[in-house]
Amino acid sequence: MVSETDHDEDLMTAELPVDEGARPDDRINDERLDEENTLKVDYIRAVREGLEEGDKGAVYDLVEPLHPADIADLIELLTRDERRDLATAITDLMSSDVIAELNDYVREDMMESLPAEAVAHIAEQLETDDAVQMIEDLDYADQQAVLAELDDDDRAAIESALAYPEETAGRLMSREVVAVPEHMSVGSLIDFLRENVDLANDFYEIFVVDHKHHPVGTCQLSWILRTPRNIALSDVMKRDQTLIPVGIDQEEVALMFQKYALISAAVVDENGRLVGQMTVDDVVHIISEEASEDALLMSGAGDGDINEPIREAYGSRVRWLIANLGTALIASLIIAAFGAAIEKLVALAILMPIVASIGGNAGTQTMAVSVRAIAMNQLTEANTARILWREFRVALLNGVTIAVLIGLATGAIFTPILGGVIALAMVINIVTAGLAGVLVPVIFERLKQDPAVASSVFVTMITDSMGFFAFLGLAVAVGLGT
Amino acid sequence: MVSETDHDEDLMTAELPVDEGARPDDRINDERLDEENTLKVDYIRAVREGLEEGDKGAVYDLVEPLHPADIADLIELLTRDERRDLATAITDLMSSDVIAELNDYVREDMMESLPAEAVAHIAEQLETDDAVQMIEDLDYADQQAVLAELDDDDRAAIESALAYPEETAGRLMSREVVAVPEHMSVGSLIDFLRENVDLANDFYEIFVVDHKHHPVGTCQLSWILRTPRNIALSDVMKRDQTLIPVGIDQEEVALMFQKYALISAAVVDENGRLVGQMTVDDVVHIISEEASEDALLMSGAGDGDINEPIREAYGSRVRWLIANLGTALIASLIIAAFGAAIEKLVALAILMPIVASIGGNAGTQTMAVSVRAIAMNQLTEANTARILWREFRVALLNGVTIAVLIGLATGAIFTPILGGVIALAMVINIVTAGLAGVLVPVIFERLKQDPAVASSVFVTMITDSMGFFAFLGLAVAVGLGT
Repeated sequence: MVSETDHDEDLMTAELPVDEGARPDDRINDERLDEENTLKVDYIRAVREGLEEGDKGAVYDLVEPLHPADIADLIELLTRDERRDLATAITDLMSSDVIAELNDYVREDMMESLPAEAVAHIAEQLETDDAVQMIEDLDYADQQAVLAELDDDDRAAIESALAYPEETAGRLMSREVVAVPEHMSVGSLIDFLRENVDLANDFYEIFVVDHKHHPVGTCQLSWILRTPRNIALSDVMKRDQTLIPVGIDQEEVALMFQKYALISAAVVDENGRLVGQMTVDDVVHIISEEASEDALLMSGAGDGDINEPIREAYGSRVRWLIANLGTALIASLIIAAFGAAIEKLVALAILMPIVASIGGNAGTQTMAVSVRAIAMNQLTEANTARILWREFRVALLNGVTIAVLIGLATGAIFTPILGGVIALAMVINIVTAGLAGVLVPVIFERLKQDPAVASSVFVTMITDSMGFFAFLGLAVAVGLGT
Repeated sequence: MVSETDHDEDLMTAELPVDEGARPDDRINDERLDEENTLKVDYIRAVREGLEEGDKGAVYDLVEPLHPADIADLIELLTRDERRDLATAITDLMSSDVIAELNDYVREDMMESLPAEAVAHIAEQLETDDAVQMIEDLDYADQQAVLAELDDDDRAAIESALAYPEETAGRLMSREVVAVPEHMSVGSLIDFLRENVDLANDFYEIFVVDHKHHPVGTCQLSWILRTPRNIALSDVMKRDQTLIPVGIDQEEVALMFQKYALISAAVVDENGRLVGQMTVDDVVHIISEEASEDALLMSGAGDGDINEPIREAYGSRVRWLIANLGTALIASLIIAAFGAAIEKLVALAILMPIVASIGGNAGTQTMAVSVRAIAMNQLTEANTARILWREFRVALLNGVTIAVLIGLATGAIFTPILGGVIALAMVINIVTAGLAGVLVPVIFERLKQDPAVASSVFVTMITDSMGFFAFLGLAVAVGLGT
C-alpha cells in the first residue's frame, strides 16, 4: 500500500499501539441514552407529552434520530394505548428492524391490531426468519390471511419454516445463504458476489457444496479477502465444520454456537443437504433467553416476561402455587403428627420454621448450581458421583456452621437439650438438601424432563418435610414435649 | 460466472430451494458425541481406563480426533488427578484453543501446576484477550514470572489489558483490529489484506479511522466483497456505529451486542481513539454467564460453578445461609409473640407454615420476573408504576385462587372461622409478596446494588414475617386461641 500520511502506516497495522493508562469514561453514543444505554426518563416523558397533546410532528422529530432497537425499547416502555398512538405518529419509522427487535408479546399485540395486508407488507421486507417470528404467534386464520397477501416465493419460504416445530433450527434458520461449488476460484467468487445484488445483506461465511448440495467446506470472508484471485476455494476452505441438523431444539443450537464459538453455521436436512444457516446475531437472543429462563422456571414464573398478558401470567404462576400448596400440606401433616408435643412445648412451634426455611435455602442453592451445570452440559453421567460427593462436603460444612450458631443461641435462650436437638436437625436437613439439590435435577434430566421446571417443588417438599420431621421427631425422641 | 454443471446455477442462488417435509434426524457430527452434543459416557470410560492403565498411546489415539472444545469438556469431566495424567499423555493436543475453552477454575488449577515458561509459551500462542484471561487469575508472583518470559510486544499488550479493572471492555477486548484510512479504495484494501500475513486470523469488520485514530465508519466484509475495486471505502462504510467505551462493564457490553445485534464492535478510549475490538464469539460467553448468573445470585449460590474449589463454594453459600438465619429468627420472634394462642389452638402451628411458604413462592416468582426485566433494561423508571400495578393484579388473582382452596379445606377439616382467617391471611401475604417482589429489586437497583444479590433475603423476610403475622394476628383478632 502507499503511505500517504505519517499516520497511515501505523493505521494499517493489525496490532494497535499499546494504550497506557486509558480509563473509563462516560461518553455515550446518543444524548437520549443514559449511562446504561437505556432511554432517559426525561426523553420518554417528552415523547409521552407529545402523544398526549396529539402533536405528531413533535413526536416524530423526537423519535426520528433513534436506532431501531431503541425505537423498539421505547414502544415497550409505553402503555398499550400510547403504543398505538406512537405507531400512527411514526409510521415510516416503524421499519422491519424495529418490528424484529420488539418483544414477542408486544409485537403480537401490535400485529393483531393491524390488517392482514399491512402485516404482509412488513413481512415482505423482513428476512425469512424474522418474518416467521412475526407470523408464528398469530391465530391460524390471521396467519392464513397474511400468507395469502405474500408473493409466492416469500409464502413458500415462510410456510416451509412454519412446517418445523417451534423453537427448532428449521423454524429459526435463515434461508438466505451463499453456497458455491468447490472448483470455483476466489476471483470468480468475488466477481459473482459483486454481480448479484439480491444476496442477503450481511453474511459472514461462504458455504462450499457438492453437486448434491451437501456442504463440503466453509470459508470465512476474511480468508477470501486475504487470498489471491486464482486460488481455488477448495484450497482455502476449512473442511471441518459444525453442521446443525434442521430438527434440533434452539437450546442445542445455542450450546453449539457457544461451545464452538461460531459466527454462523450451516443447517442441513436429514439427507445432509444444505437448507439454510443460522447466524450468531439471532442466536444471542436464544442464548440469553435459555440462560435466564432457568431462573424463571425454577421460581415457577413461566415465561416471566413483563409484557405477557395478565391472564397468561396468572395461569402459569397459579399452577405453581397450587403445586406448592400440595407440598406445604404434606409438611402440615407432619407437624400435625406432633401436635401433642407442640401443645406441651410451644418453643417447638417457634423454632421449627427455622429448620425448614434454612434447609429450603440450602436446597435451592445446590439445585441452582446443578440445574445450571446440567444446562451447560457440565454435569453428566460421567461426573455425577463426583459432584454429589462435592456437594455433600459443602453441605456438611454449611450444616455444621449453621448448627453451631443456632444450637448455641437456642441453648442460651431455651434449654441446652433443645439447642442440641435443633443443631442436629439442622445438619440433617442441610445435608439432605444438598443431596436432593443434585439428585432431583439429575433424575429429572434422566427422565427427559426439564430439571429447571420440576425440581423446585420436589426439593422444597423434601427440605420442608425433613426439616419439620427431623426437628420434631428428635425433640420427641429425647423426651421433649412429652 | 460460468456455469459448469446443471447444478451450478442453483448452487449460486442466494435463496435456497424450499425444502418440503424435511424432519428432525439424529445425525451427529462425531460418533463420540451423544444426541446432546456431549461426550458419550462409554467414550469417557475408555479414556479413563487408558489413563488408569498408563497407556498413553491409547489415550492419545482416543483424544486426537476431538474438537478442542470437546477436549476442554473432557478435561473438565475428569478428576484433578486424571486431568494431570491426561495433560501429560496429550501434550501436543493441549493447544491454545483447548486452554481458551477450559472452565476458569479448571484452567487456573492447571496453570498453577505448570512452570512459568510453559504458561508463557501457551500465552504467546493465544490472542491477547485469551492470554489475559489465562493469566489474570494467577497470583501476582506467578503472573510476573509468566510476563517476564514473554517477548516485549506480548508483555506490553497483556500488561496494558491487566491495567483495566476485571470484567471491563479494556480487559476483555482484542487488540488485533484492521484499521484503515478513509480515502483507501476497496481494491487497495484487498491488496493490503492479501499482503499482510500477520493479521488476526478471523475478523468480521474493517474499521475506518481518521488521522487521529478516531473511528469514522465501519465496513462489513460482505460489503467489501460485493463492491468494485475502485470505490473508496468512505462510500461503502456505515458512519453510524456502536462504539464501546473501554471502561464499561462486561454486562453492558453484552447488552449492547444483544440490543444492536452486533458481530463485532470498536472499543474506544476516553479520547475517542480506537484501541481494540470485541467480537461476538467472546461476548456469547458473557451473555450466557450474565443471564444465568441471576439464578445463582438469587439463590445465594455465588459463582455456582461445579468446578469452584469447595472452600470458596462454602464461603459464599454459608454467608447466604447466615443471612437467611437472621430473617428466620425475625419470623420466629413473631411466632413467639403469639405463643399463648398456639398453646391453646395447636391448629395455628400446623397451618402457619402454609401461609408463609406460599407467600415466599409468590414473592420469588415476582422477584425473578423483576430481576430479569431490570437486567434486560426493560423495567426502568418510565414503567415501574405500570409494572407494579400489573403485578398487583396478578397477585390478587393468585391470592384469591389459593385463598379459596386453602380456606375451603381448612374450613372443612378445622372450623369455618379458621378457614376464613387463613384465606384472608393468604390474600394479604400473596399481594404483599407481589408488591415486594417488584419494589425490593427496583429499590436495590436505584441504590446501585445488584438486585439479584440483595433482593432474595429481603423478599423472604417480608413474606415470612407477613405470613406468620397476618395469620396469627387475624386468628387472635377474631378470638381464636384466646
